Amino acid sequence: MSTRLFTFTAVAQGPWEVTDQTALAGPPLARASHVQLQAGAPAAPAGLWSLRGITSNERYVERDEKAALVAQQPSLGEPARSCAALIPIRKTAAWWALSQDQRRHVLEDQSRHIRTGLRYLPAVARRLHHCRDLSENEPFDFITWFEYAPQDNGLFDRLLAELRASPEWAYVDREVDIRLSRIG
Amino acid sequence: MSTRLFTFTAVAQGPWEVTDQTALAGPPLARASHVQLQAGAPAAPAGLWSLRGITSNERYVERDEKAALVAQQPSLGEPARSCAALIPIRKTAAWWALSQDQRRHVLEDQSRHIRTGLRYLPAVARRLHHCRDLSENEPFDFITWFEYAPQDNGLFDRLLAELRASPEWAYVDREVDIRLSRIG
Repeated sequence: MSTRLFTFTAVAQGPWEVTDQTALAGPPLARASHVQLQAGAPAAPAGLWSLRGITSNERYVERDEKAALVAQQPSLGEPARSCAALIPIRKTAAWWALSQDQRRHVLEDQSRHIRTGLRYLPAVARRLHHCRDLSENEPFDFITWFEYAPQDNGLFDRLLAELRASPEWAYVDREVDIRLSRIG
Repeated sequence: MSTRLFTFTAVAQGPWEVTDQTALAGPPLARASHVQLQAGAPAAPAGLWSLRGITSNERYVERDEKAALVAQQPSLGEPARSCAALIPIRKTAAWWALSQDQRRHVLEDQSRHIRTGLRYLPAVARRLHHCRDLSENEPFDFITWFEYAPQDNGLFDRLLAELRASPEWAYVDREVDIRLSRIG
């Protein structure tokens, strides 16, 4: 069975060094020096903090969009993509109270979330982890992990600026942006 | 914060007595005599078996459907609805690989899952619990708990027969149907 659960832990030494960490909305996380990414749930995650999320079926992507994503999205772990971003977010109760078609309308018709993401492929590799239904008291609803090459740093910033300026982001009430660089 | 996580445990004595238990697809569960329903996750659930699920946002229901459901669906726990059904199901990998619009198409355009459910309101009270994203190895994807009055037993059977005859059910590879009667 393929692994769906992943844990991100702030550690003293690890494969990804934190280069920048900013809380954009809601409570910050303690400043990390390094982050370790593990498949599964460590028995006792030791570290400054530990976040976990699970990959799942798509909640909004339609058939043609899925085909375009599958055709263009690169894999994680390619050495040339030595920059990463770990961005946990939480959405408001108002978001979760919307019906499926209302959420899709905000996410794509109003905010072009999927189309915007497609424009940054294959430069940016990405894995989305869901947290909200792991338990009833998770600190974030989603954790996204991105990987990109150092020369695409400005491109990646533009991707985030576009998403953060969209109507969807009015429903984001906690967001932390952690940038990392692969060691070695 | 309202409670979203619920645990169903097969116990020797409890508030709901099992009157019938049938495995319709996939591995059965050990025959229970009584079932206990608890909010949250007990530290060490003792019992023949224990299933947990979490209530979450709707995945398919659209705005008008949500309004109709909210207007008509009764609450759990009303004494007159002294019959219950606990029905855990699991769906196939093929289901989870479908895009959102493909799943909605099967669930509602082809199978009329939401419209069928609405026709049985307000007779049948219902709470849907999601399991699939609690961890990567849950035995079921969903647990639904239903409550209805004894005189609506035949009505409830017709509801299930309609759903099980629908194209959506081709994607169900494990299903156990447990019927219960409230004690006292």
